[in-house]
Amino acid sequence: MDWDQIEIDFGSGVASQLLIASGWLTGNTASFDFPGGLSELPTKLLIVCDTNTESIARSLVRRLNAGGRQVHCEVLPSGEQTKATQFVERLWSQMALLGLDRSSALIAVGGGVVGDLSGFAAATFMRGVSWFVVPTTLVAQVDSAIGGKVGINLPEGKNLIGSFWQPKGIWIDTTVLGTLPEREYLSGFAEVVKYGVISDPELFGFVEQHVAELRARDPECLKQVIVRCCRIKAEIVSADERELRGLRATLNYGHTFGHAIERVAGYGEYLHGEAVAIGMTWAARAARRLQLVDRQFELKQTKLLREMGLPVDWPAAPVEKILQAMKFDKKRKGNDPRLILPLKVGQVESREWPGDNLVMEAINEVE
Amino acid sequence: MDWDQIEIDFGSGVASQLLIASGWLTGNTASFDFPGGLSELPTKLLIVCDTNTESIARSLVRRLNAGGRQVHCEVLPSGEQTKATQFVERLWSQMALLGLDRSSALIAVGGGVVGDLSGFAAATFMRGVSWFVVPTTLVAQVDSAIGGKVGINLPEGKNLIGSFWQPKGIWIDTTVLGTLPEREYLSGFAEVVKYGVISDPELFGFVEQHVAELRARDPECLKQVIVRCCRIKAEIVSADERELRGLRATLNYGHTFGHAIERVAGYGEYLHGEAVAIGMTWAARAARRLQLVDRQFELKQTKLLREMGLPVDWPAAPVEKILQAMKFDKKRKGNDPRLILPLKVGQVESREWPGDNLVMEAINEVE
Repeated sequence: MDWDQIEIDFGSGVASQLLIASGWLTGNTASFDFPGGLSELPTKLLIVCDTNTESIARSLVRRLNAGGRQVHCEVLPSGEQTKATQFVERLWSQMALLGLDRSSALIAVGGGVVGDLSGFAAATFMRGVSWFVVPTTLVAQVDSAIGGKVGINLPEGKNLIGSFWQPKGIWIDTTVLGTLPEREYLSGFAEVVKYGVISDPELFGFVEQHVAELRARDPECLKQVIVRCCRIKAEIVSADERELRGLRATLNYGHTFGHAIERVAGYGEYLHGEAVAIGMTWAARAARRLQLVDRQFELKQTKLLREMGLPVDWPAAPVEKILQAMKFDKKRKGNDPRLILPLKVGQVESREWPGDNLVMEAINEVE
Repeated sequence: MDWDQIEIDFGSGVASQLLIASGWLTGNTASFDFPGGLSELPTKLLIVCDTNTESIARSLVRRLNAGGRQVHCEVLPSGEQTKATQFVERLWSQMALLGLDRSSALIAVGGGVVGDLSGFAAATFMRGVSWFVVPTTLVAQVDSAIGGKVGINLPEGKNLIGSFWQPKGIWIDTTVLGTLPEREYLSGFAEVVKYGVISDPELFGFVEQHVAELRARDPECLKQVIVRCCRIKAEIVSADERELRGLRATLNYGHTFGHAIERVAGYGEYLHGEAVAIGMTWAARAARRLQLVDRQFELKQTKLLREMGLPVDWPAAPVEKILQAMKFDKKRKGNDPRLILPLKVGQVESREWPGDNLVMEAINEVE
């Protein structure tokens, strides 16, 4: 099997090994040649999945059981409401009842919800046990599985509770993307295009040139895109693990708008990636008004987002409410939010809030 | 005011500042000359205390409010049952409702329960906010407030959930020990004697020579003892923050027995320090049987523990049950537990399990 490997070194002995191939989870068990040092995995493992990823998780269990391990599988309800205190308590309790100890490990098989929740359970059980993640959505494969941000929501707000806890391994099979619902699959390309804009013109160009293959979910073409995204994310998070230097903030391109869009529209109305795609369009408009980019940049970005099936505007968006939601973003330190704005394909920068009027005008434009 | 300061450097920019004085919390507010850089404290603060420490917490609030801050005070029920998921959820929710953000901080005022719970809430709110601790029991002042072990219990076991999260400041006032119930106060001396045995013959000698002053809770005499204990703990935990090198394990002298004693006797039957005092006696007997120490060492240790009002034996202890409880200690990695055994006053070492028979005989001896 043709594996790509990326080592992510966070310093002080903390590292993640990222492995990418097509078909290793879906192929013949007998030919399973996983390079991630399966023999070094603990004998006691808890796999966490949801009802959508259960069959992938069972497939992994079969591969691991071949090695004579005690592998338990916990299946959670799918959906954002699972990222809550009651489910982290369920995992804690399950880990205790199974007698997991500091040498055991947890494996998350799923999208962002399962990954964030399981990672947080791993971060906090006995003050931290190892965990691995098998991301099964495009957003998780290029973004949320990398970087160690784990946590849960409170009724008072999303992602309010959590830790930084790096997975030991991130195991990606691009073939599993074949079964995702179309809209969910495509929404992942907002993050892909984002990586292109914030730091990689070649990636941006590659997506432009392979729209058809990518929309057809060609596993090898996807692999090239995902490897590239993972390298970018790995480079950024390893240089700024705890978001102290502003570097990691560039990953928020489109997200300050996007989070506000999700919140105001009601969670689930727009998928995360869709909200980010709209947010990137609004950010580009704001940047043009500040003369950071020309109209050409905007058109180029909008065209690609559209070709990947993503929305690029929220017509008649409630501007006032969105502005208010942006100002209550949890990452704000009591000031107006900063915005990540584009300079060209491959470069963005963090800028001070350009004023309510300019932002409102950018939102109000018609694409 | 006469302040002692200890800087604890955990590397990678993580550090705790430990400040010790007598009477700074109980004295005149106007003459409050706290050296901990109060002016650099965040404007938004949540103080957490329990019903036993509420008056001390209110005294701190008055001092902080003098600086024009928003200080909120959350009062929890006292007792071990507060170290539970429902109360960490209550703190999370409270922090969200108060609008705390990453630049805010939490201050724990209390013993181990309040410290562990609050520290865990701080470790996990928005992936970690600053916290400070005002330990109000002797055990907390010399042990639990230092080193960043924070967490809660599950119905399935004690301290199963938690993090390593260092407080920014540890603010000790020895005067507050004056109001502790006698038995709780004295139980803290098990940890003090422990520090003497594991690494400081002078501290051991100082306690031997000041039994009367210490039992009378003389604040200045206590300060000398506490500073010394804190320096030892600081040195050990800064060299082995995450318990990876075995160094931190020496702090468990008397504790492998002690935890088993607490569990078998029923939590609350023996206070933690009392169980540790008995555990140290049993460890010394085991060490004598292995010819690591002579009978003189045992007598010296037992005499001092007794003079400090601590139990040194559990007559007719259920040996089989204690052995079983030791073997199910959560820190065990599937093997028999190791024991920290004394070599002389000032030196211990970690040894392999010396066999069930030897341990049972040590427990069964009559002091």
